Amino acid sequence: MSAPAATLYNPLLLPEIREMLAENDHRGLTEVMTELHPVSIAEFAEGLSPDETWQLLSHAEIHRQAEVFSFFSPAKQEELASGGGREQMSKLLEAMSHDDRVDLLRRLEQDVVDSLLPLVAKADREDIRRLLSYPEHSAGSVMTTDYATLPPDIPVSEAIGRVRREAPHKETIYYVYVVDEERRLMGLVSLRELILAKPTSPVSDIMQTEVISVRVDQDQEEVARELAKYDFIAIPVVDEQHRLVGIITHDDVIDVVVEEATEDVHRMGAVGPLEEDYLKARIVDVWRKRAVWLSLLFVAELLTVHAMQTYEHELDKLVVLAMFVPLCMSIGGNSGSQAVTLITRALALNQVSIVDWARVLRHELLMGLLLGLTVGCFGFACASLLTLLLSPPDVKAWKMGIVIAQAVAAICIWGTVVGSMLPLLFKRLGFDPGYASSPFVATLVDVTGILIYLSIAKVFLL
Amino acid sequence: MSAPAATLYNPLLLPEIREMLAENDHRGLTEVMTELHPVSIAEFAEGLSPDETWQLLSHAEIHRQAEVFSFFSPAKQEELASGGGREQMSKLLEAMSHDDRVDLLRRLEQDVVDSLLPLVAKADREDIRRLLSYPEHSAGSVMTTDYATLPPDIPVSEAIGRVRREAPHKETIYYVYVVDEERRLMGLVSLRELILAKPTSPVSDIMQTEVISVRVDQDQEEVARELAKYDFIAIPVVDEQHRLVGIITHDDVIDVVVEEATEDVHRMGAVGPLEEDYLKARIVDVWRKRAVWLSLLFVAELLTVHAMQTYEHELDKLVVLAMFVPLCMSIGGNSGSQAVTLITRALALNQVSIVDWARVLRHELLMGLLLGLTVGCFGFACASLLTLLLSPPDVKAWKMGIVIAQAVAAICIWGTVVGSMLPLLFKRLGFDPGYASSPFVATLVDVTGILIYLSIAKVFLL
Repeated sequence: MSAPAATLYNPLLLPEIREMLAENDHRGLTEVMTELHPVSIAEFAEGLSPDETWQLLSHAEIHRQAEVFSFFSPAKQEELASGGGREQMSKLLEAMSHDDRVDLLRRLEQDVVDSLLPLVAKADREDIRRLLSYPEHSAGSVMTTDYATLPPDIPVSEAIGRVRREAPHKETIYYVYVVDEERRLMGLVSLRELILAKPTSPVSDIMQTEVISVRVDQDQEEVARELAKYDFIAIPVVDEQHRLVGIITHDDVIDVVVEEATEDVHRMGAVGPLEEDYLKARIVDVWRKRAVWLSLLFVAELLTVHAMQTYEHELDKLVVLAMFVPLCMSIGGNSGSQAVTLITRALALNQVSIVDWARVLRHELLMGLLLGLTVGCFGFACASLLTLLLSPPDVKAWKMGIVIAQAVAAICIWGTVVGSMLPLLFKRLGFDPGYASSPFVATLVDVTGILIYLSIAKVFLL
Repeated sequence: MSAPAATLYNPLLLPEIREMLAENDHRGLTEVMTELHPVSIAEFAEGLSPDETWQLLSHAEIHRQAEVFSFFSPAKQEELASGGGREQMSKLLEAMSHDDRVDLLRRLEQDVVDSLLPLVAKADREDIRRLLSYPEHSAGSVMTTDYATLPPDIPVSEAIGRVRREAPHKETIYYVYVVDEERRLMGLVSLRELILAKPTSPVSDIMQTEVISVRVDQDQEEVARELAKYDFIAIPVVDEQHRLVGIITHDDVIDVVVEEATEDVHRMGAVGPLEEDYLKARIVDVWRKRAVWLSLLFVAELLTVHAMQTYEHELDKLVVLAMFVPLCMSIGGNSGSQAVTLITRALALNQVSIVDWARVLRHELLMGLLLGLTVGCFGFACASLLTLLLSPPDVKAWKMGIVIAQAVAAICIWGTVVGSMLPLLFKRLGFDPGYASSPFVATLVDVTGILIYLSIAKVFLL
């Protein structure tokens, strides 16, 4: 339930709140903390200093404080947690939802965590340690442990009573999980089913027994896909012995979906995925994530120099050939970008899998052919025209047109095929298909594009 | 609550089900329809013919049928709705959730809709007509009208009774909306709050009055952002008079988030957004969406020919210059891709807005400088080395190295700046910033890259 980045706090409220804080207006501040939506409070609190923020928070009971805190931006949360007020912070940690606090602790410096944890109640401390032990991006790292459970053998009336008592402390009570004495997941009842059921029937009679669950070590992306598929409010997380260890709720899944889409998009643009806000990320981190790819692609592009050298003689003899090199190169990069984008996204959405490679290839061969014909026609017209305008007509315009038309069509087909097959190949080899970015495909196709163009030119013009 | 594309039905169950269908095994089929999860039923039903599917569905009561139907793939739904069985289909439409059925009707041919609607009960027909009238991608087009409402003045005990009675027919009862006699939205109570409250207090005492809502004509992307921000299960939709007209639930928001991410990704790869599954989309549609961009970019790239022509004399005199053109071009495209990807995504996530343009520019100028220095160093080393290997050493290797280093650094800065500013400019002009795709930026930068490189070369080498 981590808060999305708040970009704008409400600037109208801020001066008023500041005044209240200066006057320590207990009644006004209590009203602000209890009446406004936590998101609104969090938004204008972005404009307050850490001390002011702590002062404001102190005017509500601890669960409300934790709720507001959970909507602060990550930067604000870290600032408050790392600054003074260890005592207050440890109380907040106890009251925060279990996944949010682990999320925060993961982002803090180790020495801050070490100074906070001893102040947290033992049960919470152990819960935190356990959740922190799951690897990043696993189901365990995004799940929460404050879910409601029931034994199978009590009647519905007693079950409702229990859920009512647990309600204030649980992340959701809309799904209640039925577990045996060893906490093995036996079934699921929704609150809707509970309040509709006969009060005397045992829970085991009304629970759904075919419960979809995920394993604690599964990747968060798969988990998000499962939950989205079934339209659940929450999905239970189990260990190898099918014991219930946590739940993942719908709001966390939206966060995961957005996070994974961002990663995919960044990879497509040949940037190592940035987890921080663009404007808040450290310059040196961003530089590293961009420079690595840029340098690798640059080195790969050196092959284009080699390709050009192979035709040095021809280029020397007919300078007009060089003029069309950038044009031919670009069509490969663009058609490759289109194909790689479509296939990478289709893979991410599970619309296509590796076994479909032959269908994809047929599809893209046909598409490459159609696109090649389309752009080839433009190529003929434009190249003929441009050659006519060149000062020394050392080559016939229609001949140049034919060469460019053929080259452009061939490179277009080639770019389309490479762009569509590369993500599938990457997936087959166990890499993230997203690494087959547009620039990566463009680089691959650039070299071959030059060779295709110049070899066609050699045959027809020299 | 539309179902995501089912990619694989359960092949193990299918032969068994087929056998049951052939024998018309009522007990077995009823068990299948009631015991299995609707998603599982929908998955294997993808392998059944329309007739077999209708036969299978008929073994459950109509609400269960509607639930299973809602998880069928869009193609399967359309097949069933367009085929025979108008009577059965109209009954299903009445039982389906209100947003799902409108979603389906939107996808059907007009004559199929016209033949189905008269068979649907009047109240449902009017609901369908109203929902169909909202433009695509608006809040109205994704909302559902089967939500639960309460008047403000009844006691909690009566409210719980009402919610219980309405529960089987509502999409969610976890949020109940409080409205006055004109259906104006006054407040919200969650089921959690209802069951925790004193049975005698009036609903108006326990309801939250600061309710976040969206307008029926708002864009679905903004709606998704709002819901994700507040971690809601559902968000109410109101008209201009603040009357409640529908709700949008968390599962639909996940669908919207995924759909919007796909659109963004497709635009980034210079493909008109495809709404269908990759393998299911019609060839001619895909061709059009790709050919338009590819042709536009091709025509724009003709400027590179013009740029090269401007330096025809220099290229003729020093053929080695042409060798390095592709290398210099590619660095512009790649650095531009990185910048445009980061900024477009940051805009989509609201991490950056137009007013930040100066900060982004400073940021990217610095980054371009750092990246330019990095790649410039490589450039010097590689170009010197490659020139040494060229057959006629008509230019000093270190001189060529210096030219390439400068050109690469300058083009890198230029690509970074153009890539970062273009999406902001597009947004400022009212276009979707996503149209500033990697290929688009690359094309822009290609021409200028060539001019930068050749003008530096002219100064230093000729």
